[in-house]
Amino acid sequence: MIKEKRENPSGKIGVVESKIFTFDSLKLESDEKLGPVTLAYETYGSLNQEKTNAVLITHALSGDAHAAGVHEGEDNPGWWDDFIGPGKAFDTDRYFIVCSNILGGCKGSTGPSSVNPKTGNSYALDFPLISINDMVCAQKRLIDHLGIEKLLAVVGGSMGGQQVLSWLVNYPDRLRSAIPIATTIKHSPQQIAFNEVGRQAIMADTHWKSGNYYGAQAPTKGLAVARMIGHITYMSDKSMAEKFGRAKKEIGEPFKFTADFEVEGYLRYRGDNFVKRFDANSYLYITKAMDNFDATASRPLAQALQDSGVKVLVISFKSDWLYPAYQSKEIVKACKLAGVESSYCEIDSTYGHDAFLLEVEEESHLIKHFLKKVFYAYEVTGEYGA
Amino acid sequence: MIKEKRENPSGKIGVVESKIFTFDSLKLESDEKLGPVTLAYETYGSLNQEKTNAVLITHALSGDAHAAGVHEGEDNPGWWDDFIGPGKAFDTDRYFIVCSNILGGCKGSTGPSSVNPKTGNSYALDFPLISINDMVCAQKRLIDHLGIEKLLAVVGGSMGGQQVLSWLVNYPDRLRSAIPIATTIKHSPQQIAFNEVGRQAIMADTHWKSGNYYGAQAPTKGLAVARMIGHITYMSDKSMAEKFGRAKKEIGEPFKFTADFEVEGYLRYRGDNFVKRFDANSYLYITKAMDNFDATASRPLAQALQDSGVKVLVISFKSDWLYPAYQSKEIVKACKLAGVESSYCEIDSTYGHDAFLLEVEEESHLIKHFLKKVFYAYEVTGEYGA
Repeated sequence: MIKEKRENPSGKIGVVESKIFTFDSLKLESDEKLGPVTLAYETYGSLNQEKTNAVLITHALSGDAHAAGVHEGEDNPGWWDDFIGPGKAFDTDRYFIVCSNILGGCKGSTGPSSVNPKTGNSYALDFPLISINDMVCAQKRLIDHLGIEKLLAVVGGSMGGQQVLSWLVNYPDRLRSAIPIATTIKHSPQQIAFNEVGRQAIMADTHWKSGNYYGAQAPTKGLAVARMIGHITYMSDKSMAEKFGRAKKEIGEPFKFTADFEVEGYLRYRGDNFVKRFDANSYLYITKAMDNFDATASRPLAQALQDSGVKVLVISFKSDWLYPAYQSKEIVKACKLAGVESSYCEIDSTYGHDAFLLEVEEESHLIKHFLKKVFYAYEVTGEYGA
Repeated sequence: MIKEKRENPSGKIGVVESKIFTFDSLKLESDEKLGPVTLAYETYGSLNQEKTNAVLITHALSGDAHAAGVHEGEDNPGWWDDFIGPGKAFDTDRYFIVCSNILGGCKGSTGPSSVNPKTGNSYALDFPLISINDMVCAQKRLIDHLGIEKLLAVVGGSMGGQQVLSWLVNYPDRLRSAIPIATTIKHSPQQIAFNEVGRQAIMADTHWKSGNYYGAQAPTKGLAVARMIGHITYMSDKSMAEKFGRAKKEIGEPFKFTADFEVEGYLRYRGDNFVKRFDANSYLYITKAMDNFDATASRPLAQALQDSGVKVLVISFKSDWLYPAYQSKEIVKACKLAGVESSYCEIDSTYGHDAFLLEVEEESHLIKHFLKKVFYAYEVTGEYGA
């Protein structure tokens, strides 16, 4: 919820706070039942009377509900703050923005670190396997709860983009548009492999103890290694060369395997920081959900999209080798085959996969105009869809 | 040494055995002294009377002296057996092939697992930091010992290619030709980053104990993770897609994070196998040597190559994203600037970095003709160099 918005006319949305929504139970794709389920979420801007201006933002692997603004007493803005606020891509003067922490996460939503009501202890590995579709099913319950019949758009990058595709396939009648960014219909073996090595690093940590580390030392070293692998794949060869080169740090330590190259110090710093804010078991469950996701599991994507009337904007980035442009083009192809109105842009960036967080100007321009068009089409016709 | 060569006219060189060469001491780039130093090595074919037909093969990170043939009682041939033998790229009917395990290794040469004569225990982290130039300096001692004044060629891929460049820069008068394959003048931050994460995985293993694990449980889980990261970078997105797709294995285990995708099973298998044959501390020392290597450290490569008279064949592979073609082109550019006779070929392969081990036909063709040309030029002129 926005507070003091008017104090920040320069695009900032000021202090925000997270809320929670809890519901009784969720039937999972695995047929298991999970409950109660809590989702942490934030909203920015106001829902209009017709409830036609709601945009759902879905987050990536390490994201959370805190997409924009700052929390009381803190300095760091939300993870997509550059895109959300008055006059920005997701203009809070015009739209009502919702972002929730995914099911399985560790930032306020129910996940493996939550208390299992049956035992009174953390679920740990008793937490059921969850899927991207399960995450989206829980999000839909939140959207129901907020009284939104049809979202103006659902938008997300990376794993957020997988959720966008899941919305498209499972609830096309609840959307007017979708923006999958730097994502894929299904993971390639290379993408699975990087996630698997991260999982192996966590499970190799003796502190992991088959997931039962809550209340004791967490497997922070293994999780840090997993995060370091991730960071390499989020950048490009070129962006690393530009940022670090082969520069060395001045180091006092005589240890032979000190991080003396700047790139090494950066990775260790990012790894060490991550473990303070993320749960290792959540990392296992979420990456497994990403690997298992296949938007074509029940039928071809083009078939699922047919007659949906949803408008789609697909965005990829030239130097993104983790979610390469050819994967985004497969989404575009399915849209075209389905006769769905779609636009595609491959942004010329050197930032690699991280570009979806960093290419503010060009990405904002694309999103802003796309959203306006979709919103305006509704305002004029008074009807959903094309 | 070749045994029973004549029993295998079909290109196989039969049973071979490793030998060792020990010398008193080596002054390292770090100014430290290491000694005694042992190198394990193998030779195939016979040195001619003029000693003009010797080819030194340098191995990659996980390689060893056993490049071809089979050891008595074993089935697995050496790591480059497809390239070495009668009629092959390195024709043992014509050339005398030498391959030695690098300094710092764990397959017979002096490394961190060797006994420190000062303590009677394994060196562990008391082993001094070594460089690619140190490895090559030790190889040169072996070449001296074999009575070879001038090598017909020095050839290697990946880290083997770094050694080739080190030979070129430090001992150009001891070479008539050089074949650096899928390698680089110096590691990019991305290459350093992948190695660093591997090192972090090893050092995160509680069994690593600051390197003092000899005689106890080795840090096999950490080393396996390091190897898995390596394997991802050795393959290409496309070769993984062709080899594994998203196929799943039939598994009996109910464990949530079982390797159910085939690519996961493959990585775990390769990781588990590697730890049986490799020492974790060697992995740390060798990868650090690779990261620190810079063929332009003392002067530009073009300047170092000037007037060397060495002929150079540079080979890269199209889908190799770990040692991308642009890095090989930098070597070619330096050769051209130096006026060195050089050829370059980027082989159209989908195998990624592994291609240097797998693209037998095209690579053999290039090497065979290049070596013949260099050898024949000598035979005719009776002189070294161009």
